Amino acid sequence: MIIKLKNSATAEQKQQLISLGEQLGVSVCTVVGAIDTLLGFIGDTTHIDIEQLEALDIVDSVKRIQAPYKKANRIIHPENTTIKVGDAVIGGSSPVLIAGPCSVESEEQICSIALDVKNSGAQLLRGGAFKPRTSPYAFQGLRKDGIKLLLEAKQVSGLPIVTEIMDISQLPLFDDVDVIQVGARNMQNFELLKELGKTKKPILLKRGLSSTLEELLMSAEYIMSGGNEQVILCERGIRTFETATRNTLDLSAIPVLKNLSHLPIIIDPSHATGKANLVPSMARAAIAAGADGLIIEVHNNPPCALCDGQQSLTPEAFDTLAKSLNRIAAAL
Amino acid sequence: MIIKLKNSATAEQKQQLISLGEQLGVSVCTVVGAIDTLLGFIGDTTHIDIEQLEALDIVDSVKRIQAPYKKANRIIHPENTTIKVGDAVIGGSSPVLIAGPCSVESEEQICSIALDVKNSGAQLLRGGAFKPRTSPYAFQGLRKDGIKLLLEAKQVSGLPIVTEIMDISQLPLFDDVDVIQVGARNMQNFELLKELGKTKKPILLKRGLSSTLEELLMSAEYIMSGGNEQVILCERGIRTFETATRNTLDLSAIPVLKNLSHLPIIIDPSHATGKANLVPSMARAAIAAGADGLIIEVHNNPPCALCDGQQSLTPEAFDTLAKSLNRIAAAL
Amino acid sequence: MIIKLKNSATAEQKQQLISLGEQLGVSVCTVVGAIDTLLGFIGDTTHIDIEQLEALDIVDSVKRIQAPYKKANRIIHPENTTIKVGDAVIGGSSPVLIAGPCSVESEEQICSIALDVKNSGAQLLRGGAFKPRTSPYAFQGLRKDGIKLLLEAKQVSGLPIVTEIMDISQLPLFDDVDVIQVGARNMQNFELLKELGKTKKPILLKRGLSSTLEELLMSAEYIMSGGNEQVILCERGIRTFETATRNTLDLSAIPVLKNLSHLPIIIDPSHATGKANLVPSMARAAIAAGADGLIIEVHNNPPCALCDGQQSLTPEAFDTLAKSLNRIAAAL
Amino acid sequence: MIIKLKNSATAEQKQQLISLGEQLGVSVCTVVGAIDTLLGFIGDTTHIDIEQLEALDIVDSVKRIQAPYKKANRIIHPENTTIKVGDAVIGGSSPVLIAGPCSVESEEQICSIALDVKNSGAQLLRGGAFKPRTSPYAFQGLRKDGIKLLLEAKQVSGLPIVTEIMDISQLPLFDDVDVIQVGARNMQNFELLKELGKTKKPILLKRGLSSTLEELLMSAEYIMSGGNEQVILCERGIRTFETATRNTLDLSAIPVLKNLSHLPIIIDPSHATGKANLVPSMARAAIAAGADGLIIEVHNNPPCALCDGQQSLTPEAFDTLAKSLNRIAAAL
Repeated sequence: MIIKLKNSATAEQKQQLISLGEQLGVSVCTVVGAIDTLLGFIGDTTHIDIEQLEALDIVDSVKRIQAPYKKANRIIHPENTTIKVGDAVIGGSSPVLIAGPCSVESEEQICSIALDVKNSGAQLLRGGAFKPRTSPYAFQGLRKDGIKLLLEAKQVSGLPIVTEIMDISQLPLFDDVDVIQVGARNMQNFELLKELGKTKKPILLKRGLSSTLEELLMSAEYIMSGGNEQVILCERGIRTFETATRNTLDLSAIPVLKNLSHLPIIIDPSHATGKANLVPSMARAAIAAGADGLIIEVHNNPPCALCDGQQSLTPEAFDTLAKSLNRIAAAL
Repeated sequence: MIIKLKNSATAEQKQQLISLGEQLGVSVCTVVGAIDTLLGFIGDTTHIDIEQLEALDIVDSVKRIQAPYKKANRIIHPENTTIKVGDAVIGGSSPVLIAGPCSVESEEQICSIALDVKNSGAQLLRGGAFKPRTSPYAFQGLRKDGIKLLLEAKQVSGLPIVTEIMDISQLPLFDDVDVIQVGARNMQNFELLKELGKTKKPILLKRGLSSTLEELLMSAEYIMSGGNEQVILCERGIRTFETATRNTLDLSAIPVLKNLSHLPIIIDPSHATGKANLVPSMARAAIAAGADGLIIEVHNNPPCALCDGQQSLTPEAFDTLAKSLNRIAAAL
Repeated sequence: MIIKLKNSATAEQKQQLISLGEQLGVSVCTVVGAIDTLLGFIGDTTHIDIEQLEALDIVDSVKRIQAPYKKANRIIHPENTTIKVGDAVIGGSSPVLIAGPCSVESEEQICSIALDVKNSGAQLLRGGAFKPRTSPYAFQGLRKDGIKLLLEAKQVSGLPIVTEIMDISQLPLFDDVDVIQVGARNMQNFELLKELGKTKKPILLKRGLSSTLEELLMSAEYIMSGGNEQVILCERGIRTFETATRNTLDLSAIPVLKNLSHLPIIIDPSHATGKANLVPSMARAAIAAGADGLIIEVHNNPPCALCDGQQSLTPEAFDTLAKSLNRIAAAL
Repeated sequence: MIIKLKNSATAEQKQQLISLGEQLGVSVCTVVGAIDTLLGFIGDTTHIDIEQLEALDIVDSVKRIQAPYKKANRIIHPENTTIKVGDAVIGGSSPVLIAGPCSVESEEQICSIALDVKNSGAQLLRGGAFKPRTSPYAFQGLRKDGIKLLLEAKQVSGLPIVTEIMDISQLPLFDDVDVIQVGARNMQNFELLKELGKTKKPILLKRGLSSTLEELLMSAEYIMSGGNEQVILCERGIRTFETATRNTLDLSAIPVLKNLSHLPIIIDPSHATGKANLVPSMARAAIAAGADGLIIEVHNNPPCALCDGQQSLTPEAFDTLAKSLNRIAAAL
């Protein structure tokens, strides 16, 4: 941490700040230049609140040199984390496909899609029971009943299931869910993250629409610091000025996160683009960029989907896509 | 709602879509041009899911003509909403000042600040008990004890209190809180919004970092459609590419929201700028732009604040600011 | 074009607007709903200024239904445009590699890199002679001499050359340049675009840092409407809130532009990411997403590059990358 | 400048980098921590290319501590710069109003508006002769004839004139223009900035749609380093995800730029909001925030304006606004 002092700082004030650093357990060095004086706080600074330093009268600005996360940090844990769910290994040697409808709608729907996507090579089934919708007048999901239907589809297909939690109070319903998803809008729902840190289940953590990759890793750190180190990161598009796509898919997140962290990273091209006809090329791009997997919306009847039909692939389109993904993975 | 059809649409498909519109309770008109065919869905379309229409095979794109919110819509409720809290009238003829520390830290701290800001003209006391922090290693607030200290400060000063809720499970602790704040990161925590819609308390709803004004009004609609129409909108800076300020304060939100909605709007220049020395000019600008109030961080010892000290005014600076705000309000 | 009228509009005003539409050569239809009255302007609306309509007293808002560009529009020109440069066909059946240093620095440098990248499969040589730099104190390029050195490298290697123009006055120096590049900062330098529309040379048009894809196509339209239809679109990263990469590479631009336009699209992963170690995965992703080519910075001694060394590949790294790109292209 | 080395750096490489720093004229200090080694380059670093350092094999990352501009820097020039144009003093004790139509359309139009805005207190006349338009099919301005008409209006009204240049080749036409405007799209047209640096005229430099404040100051530095220190900065809205306004007006630019630089700063609420009914509140906010002036679009017949009528005030509305601005300026 590099602290630039104001020119008005007195020798006594400087000494107080040096003492503060020493109390915080870092070693402090001083650099006096022609124009500026800098203090360096050297050592583990993850527990130091940069904003508190910035509030000091004598401080002009503070810059972090080290990442503010530890458990998610590749420097500290160089080995890739792999997460086993059923037969799938997320973060392993080959990419994992997660597929299913945006919303669970009926037993027939979810079981039929589950069998279809399994046949095409998907290793996990996704499906929303609790649905975060911008409008209070839109379909809010089957909720508790949706979870039940997912569990039936799991039995029928043998696929483990991924579904989204929206509030701590729903946690008891997730006992038999294999992977708990935290949606983009809840990436910084810190109370929820803390509770999930106490569970033993893999957490699929989606990046917030306007969250930096560092913030995504800090949210992973919330879960991990609670004791649950099974976090799967998910890029699903960020909000930018461009309106041609629902969001802007940031595929450079893949190599950046691979450098910064040991956690697996998967891509959601369906929510990122918001349009079914853009999904296949972005799915292929994600695999080519080194993603550990994809989560893709598939619906057996997109025009009648209760939610997000415009971005869902048909089972046939998903099957074709899965084959091309295999070819790309093999080419790498 | 204007629906542009694909050129591939058959007469039969077109007729099915017209029937769908009629089932949805709107009247449908057809416009056939040289290049495109359009359908107009005319009437109340707030309950129609634009994405479901976009998913239809024959639909190229859909554009809304009317706002997707009703209860928050000025067209439907032309009169300004005013919200009484203690002696303050938010949305009334003169702007209301809400002030206090980022975090409640101690009885001495919160009571002393409460008396100071009251003397300077603040009509409500703010203070965080539950604190959303990016890092799990940062101070998380005094939580339950913080609420107790706020209530003591309320008794001592006579000021009603505003404080943030982070999870539904905390709601019982808010029985004696006057205004419940929903933070920017929870603006789309829809489960929480639904619960707050069942309460009788004014809700201070902060705009999310990457939320459009329409989305802010949709979140207000969640609360209002549950039965609680006392919503105070709050602009607190949005996330942009600019890094010179913590966020970019979008003051044009004031006249835009005044046009679209009857709800009061207040401004938080402290979180928007992230720097105490930028707060006074942005506070003055907000009042000049017609804001119904301000929420400002004030701390009796910013360098020792446990949170956000760098953006807190001293009581003296707040007093000077309050005087200049009065002069501007009088000049309008 | 759908025009929503204000409720205050009189019958006479409405009639005037209908007449205006007819004068503008479109047919006009009227839709009267319970709440709103809409006018539809049907036909070719590319020459109608949406802002002029929005300025009318009786107009609430206007929405375009059709794209505002014609010559770049795939609906009007369904066939892919292909552009031949030397042996390369940009927009043809296989992706084209353009490679070379950010800046031309010396005869030895540019000729050596040209031969290296040719050996690895590059079909065009890039190199900057005129360099747009944020700081007036940074190296501004060899300018006229840089063009001369590029032409020598062209002779030595047989590769056609691509280089950037920064001002109309430089145009005479580009007589022997094969492809003229318009940089991101000049994408809306309309005077320059008009001049380039009068030339016969292929133009590589880079997307501006904050330009929508529609604006990119409008800038292409400037060149095309002047008579030069040989435009190559280039996505090179947009500006967002994320700071982990120099810009955010928007690969969904590839399928979106392919839908909207018949022009070829290439990707610049070097400027997008700003870091050499991120380039290979983004290059692979671009090819997997269907890009018509890549433009990649290669330097024989990155640490000594006078510009952008941090994002340049070595010739060896480029060679390895080119091989993996071939495998992906073959897998598609 | 703080340089974080990679752990792989050898002692010899470190020594080479220290020598490089010394050759570049800075003093170098070394800080060795438990995890990282840092080098500090202390002194004037404006001429050091941060990207060249980042390209070095042994460098992990580089952070600037000092601003990269000198002539625009308040630390080096603490006194406010004031710029006299006619009777107006921009950057002086009271804010200056610049008003006029988006485009010059006719002698009658520009002269009539000039007299009107003068009567309301405007001290400079604005009007576009060369118009940057997104569409090649939109009105491009009267160009040379527009300048002539502006000069006539100057004679008639006595107001000095501000008008936009779009290309170096137009410079000879600007001999009698009082202030040359550089539009947002040309803020990084560095060839143009260099030429303007050789003139003796005040330059009104608009911030680019996606330019940081630091980049704006770097563009000012281009002009100033050429010898022309009369630069007026102008904030006119930045591009964000919000679509309710044409752009997002960043009023915090005012206090931020006042801290960083001695140059005057004015605000353009017309282009920022894109809607006439939002202009007055944003104009008032800008004055309350401490702007040195405003540039506002005024048209005698907005619905018939050839450009940007939807954001133009009538002369009557401008007159009312000017009076309220005076009251606010007096209240400060």
